[in-house]
Amino acid sequence: MSTLEGRGFTEEQEALVVKSWNVMKKNSAELALKFFLKIFEIAPSAQNLFSFLKDSKVPLEQNPKLKPHATSVFMMTCESAVQLRKAGKVTVRESTLKKLGGTHFKYGVANEHFEVTKFALLETIKEAVPEMWSAAMKNAWGEAYDQLVDAIKSEMKPST
Amino acid sequence: MSTLEGRGFTEEQEALVVKSWNVMKKNSAELALKFFLKIFEIAPSAQNLFSFLKDSKVPLEQNPKLKPHATSVFMMTCESAVQLRKAGKVTVRESTLKKLGGTHFKYGVANEHFEVTKFALLETIKEAVPEMWSAAMKNAWGEAYDQLVDAIKSEMKPST
Repeated sequence: MSTLEGRGFTEEQEALVVKSWNVMKKNSAELALKFFLKIFEIAPSAQNLFSFLKDSKVPLEQNPKLKPHATSVFMMTCESAVQLRKAGKVTVRESTLKKLGGTHFKYGVANEHFEVTKFALLETIKEAVPEMWSAAMKNAWGEAYDQLVDAIKSEMKPST
Repeated sequence: MSTLEGRGFTEEQEALVVKSWNVMKKNSAELALKFFLKIFEIAPSAQNLFSFLKDSKVPLEQNPKLKPHATSVFMMTCESAVQLRKAGKVTVRESTLKKLGGTHFKYGVANEHFEVTKFALLETIKEAVPEMWSAAMKNAWGEAYDQLVDAIKSEMKPST
């Protein structure tokens, strides 16, 4: 078992994450939408996890709530990666890990969903910064994502 | 509810599937391995569904049972697509849908697994025949795959 604090994230990994995030953040709303559309391309049934998609009659790309939601998830994910080394642990803004854990528990998010999301995130970043993409950058983002997921999973229980 | 027989698969869809399969089949063992490695890249936990992977100590690519297994699944999937229109229904060789349904039930294959597999299959075909790939070809293979999955799902119950 790894503890949430103190798990390795090297200076080099931090530099790769920061470098790519500096390019991506100018364009984060569009990238966030691409990221979510990729998740649903791979696993259409994941739409059932979002109330504003399940009950919606408009096409996915036109759903008024999808882009704002995707943007906030994408920003939070990338910023937690950027701050991981400095903070020494996973931190999220505009929410708490406890709240995030509770929501993911409530909607029945499974291991497979976290895995598909990781794949979609890495693909999105790869396509966003093709000129700086490398195996090392993939590993850096993958490690930051895994640490975020572990932090969320550790809080996945019914909210009290 | 769609019945398993008589669901649409047009002459054009058949032609697209046959055309691409004629190119792919010469290379089916390599493509099959790529297909399965893609599934596990997207969803690493899917390895737990295969006894010969779960208990294995060698890297995925070197597992002696993966390539033969992947090849038989890939061949079966593609051949059922190729024969779909002529046969007027989903047919599989060297097995029965009943047996396939029983196995998928036994190992607890979920909707998400079928979805990830579909995405990996379409990506594999796209990379195998980039010069003939099109939205229509994607739809043709997607429809054939969906019909195969529906046929398997209809037999997903405990074997007697």
